Amino acid sequence: PPVDKGVDYAQYFCTYAFLYHQKDMLSDRVRMDAYFNAIFQNKHHFSGKTVLDVGTGSGILAIWSAQAGARKVYAVEATKVAEHARNLVKANNLQHLVEVIEGSIEDITLPEKVDVIISEWMGYFLLRESMFDSVICARDRWLKPTGVMYPSHARMWIAPIWTGLLDQKLGQYHLAMDDWHNFAEETNSYYGVDMSVLTKPFAEEQRKYYLQTSMWSDLKPNQVIGTAAVIKEIDCLTATVADIKEVGSKFSSSISTENTKLCGFGGWFDVHFRGRVEDPAGQEIELTTAPSVDHGTHWGQQAFLLHPALHVSKGDHLSISFFMDRSKENHRLMEVEVECDIQQYSGKPLKTLKNKYYIE
Amino acid sequence: PPVDKGVDYAQYFCTYAFLYHQKDMLSDRVRMDAYFNAIFQNKHHFSGKTVLDVGTGSGILAIWSAQAGARKVYAVEATKVAEHARNLVKANNLQHLVEVIEGSIEDITLPEKVDVIISEWMGYFLLRESMFDSVICARDRWLKPTGVMYPSHARMWIAPIWTGLLDQKLGQYHLAMDDWHNFAEETNSYYGVDMSVLTKPFAEEQRKYYLQTSMWSDLKPNQVIGTAAVIKEIDCLTATVADIKEVGSKFSSSISTENTKLCGFGGWFDVHFRGRVEDPAGQEIELTTAPSVDHGTHWGQQAFLLHPALHVSKGDHLSISFFMDRSKENHRLMEVEVECDIQQYSGKPLKTLKNKYYIE
Ligand SMILES: Nc1ncnc2c1ncn2[C@@H]1O[C@H](CSCC[C@H](N)C(=O)O)[C@@H](O)[C@H]1O
Ligand SMILES: Nc1ncnc2c1ncn2[C@@H]1O[C@H](CSCC[C@H](N)C(=O)O)[C@@H](O)[C@H]1O
Repeated sequence: PPVDKGVDYAQYFCTYAFLYHQKDMLSDRVRMDAYFNAIFQNKHHFSGKTVLDVGTGSGILAIWSAQAGARKVYAVEATKVAEHARNLVKANNLQHLVEVIEGSIEDITLPEKVDVIISEWMGYFLLRESMFDSVICARDRWLKPTGVMYPSHARMWIAPIWTGLLDQKLGQYHLAMDDWHNFAEETNSYYGVDMSVLTKPFAEEQRKYYLQTSMWSDLKPNQVIGTAAVIKEIDCLTATVADIKEVGSKFSSSISTENTKLCGFGGWFDVHFRGRVEDPAGQEIELTTAPSVDHGTHWGQQAFLLHPALHVSKGDHLSISFFMDRSKENHRLMEVEVECDIQQYSGKPLKTLKNKYYIE
Repeated sequence: PPVDKGVDYAQYFCTYAFLYHQKDMLSDRVRMDAYFNAIFQNKHHFSGKTVLDVGTGSGILAIWSAQAGARKVYAVEATKVAEHARNLVKANNLQHLVEVIEGSIEDITLPEKVDVIISEWMGYFLLRESMFDSVICARDRWLKPTGVMYPSHARMWIAPIWTGLLDQKLGQYHLAMDDWHNFAEETNSYYGVDMSVLTKPFAEEQRKYYLQTSMWSDLKPNQVIGTAAVIKEIDCLTATVADIKEVGSKFSSSISTENTKLCGFGGWFDVHFRGRVEDPAGQEIELTTAPSVDHGTHWGQQAFLLHPALHVSKGDHLSISFFMDRSKENHRLMEVEVECDIQQYSGKPLKTLKNKYYIE
């Protein structure tokens, strides 16, 4: 079904209109360093060139592009934050180079094609928010045949994890159900209404909320208990919407930690700034959101919980099939199915799991 | 502008689709007792009668109406929770009396007019959510000329208050601004972009968020430091949408506490179940959300903060002008303007305050 623009604004864009939210992104040093280095260590991509910044927000990437020598920067932003971007550009004396355009990239037109498209379009687990659709639209309409994408490549990763979140969420789920049972009893005795028929749907709703909704986490490397696998690679220069609408992957992972608990899977992404084969980056920059001791990002990782947790040990083998699709109700959210066969090191099959998750 | 139904669903109805949210309301004992008593202590209004429940949610009021002897109950609910209501009705053996209809009350039709309209339509500070519009629509279309409204009357109240929330919110606001200043400095030194032009709009945004958004509070009677005033009375049988779209009132209050601080105003409401003049309730029931030691409701009170707080004392006189309007962006939210002249007991004018608030 076609997307209702009003609903899309209410559900998605509205938050970006707040400077508070823009500041959150501008305070993410890992993110900022990556884009900053990508631009200023590859000035040859910007110097004297035309640039399109898709979703300029505060205007930061457009401003850097201009400072790196761009001849002209088109900075497109759908929300009212465009006005702040315009003021920021002026206060930094770049109004002759940076043109801020308020509007959806799908709706606006530019006076010329551009040499570079830069955009920070990545959502949780890369594809949440489906903003890369808009970058593809911009690329197909406005990038010169010789143009360069910033970033140029993106990957999604999955790995088995241990996490304390599992016990926490299980606990919260059980508390919610205890509470329900008290509530149902009281409603019956005080008000003469038997609520028990709603117990099952309430439990389902709470299970979905606490256990099937993937969760933001700040995983540390030692919480990754097996080999990580790339489940999707995107070439930003050529990917189509059809390529990214669904993500399916079959892969295996072997447990690398002795005597631990498999609590679920962690998902994250990285992007690279490599320029274009014919016009490569001098200095290739990576932005990774992988579990890290002290380079966490505001994206963190997404945790997909398994319950009950499963005792596993070094050498145990996981065969995993992963499938992600967009939610029918909201194309910017995702639904995920994970199937996992677990074999002990000895070859003995341990368990087959199948789970459904929501990235909300 | 006409309301976009998709946007209205995304911003308003969607939360009511969760049993979790319905349970919150069903767990509010003050609310439940009031409706329960209103129905069962006035069985003559229900016995053998036809009833329309506007926004039946879980179905509770429809079920009680049937249990009180209604001949037929139409239970209309806009969200998917209607399905749960239908199951609850069945599990309580009332499917021959209660017909659950999924749809907006504005869109559906009934096979007959009804004797009673019952609805729990009250939002924070009574009118937030603007759901009474839908009750008016139902009344004008489906209530018999001799019909009865449950509840029959509603009032809005305002009083001067002391609250610790003021210092808390002021503290949070100042922390947010300190944080901004660090952020701006770092962005300048690390990334060569001068953010200072955004300091003012950021401060405005944060001030709106922390200090101008009315806040849910659980006020105790001793936090009410002056006389409370009724600023609006609604007769549910006759009120029109025009009557409730805007609420304006000029009133005065005298401080009743020695040496205290005026931290703002508290707003709450009550509703009454009086039946109809020609067909009155045998037992008049009140549901109040006023500050209370141990009869708090999930509505609490709305606090409108004043800063800086003002030292006042017994006998000081406040002349207040209050004006509430619907927000242009979302007709279910409100904007409020308060003007307040403060005179000391001696007659000496102390201060004139003017403030704008958002009920979000
Ligand atoms: N289709 C579209 N057209 C225009 N702007 C869009 C868009 N989709 C998303 N955006 C905007 O893209 C921004 C993504 S967040 C990144 C902001 C900024 N480039 C920075 O790096 O700090 C948001 O401000 C959002 O409102
Ligand atoms: N115009 C409309 N048509 C139908 N249902 C509506 C409506 N406006 C609001 N509602 C529903 O009205 C309910 C209000 S909450 C009250 C629920 C229930 N009567 C109880 O007392 O517990 C919500 O479930 C909401 O979805």
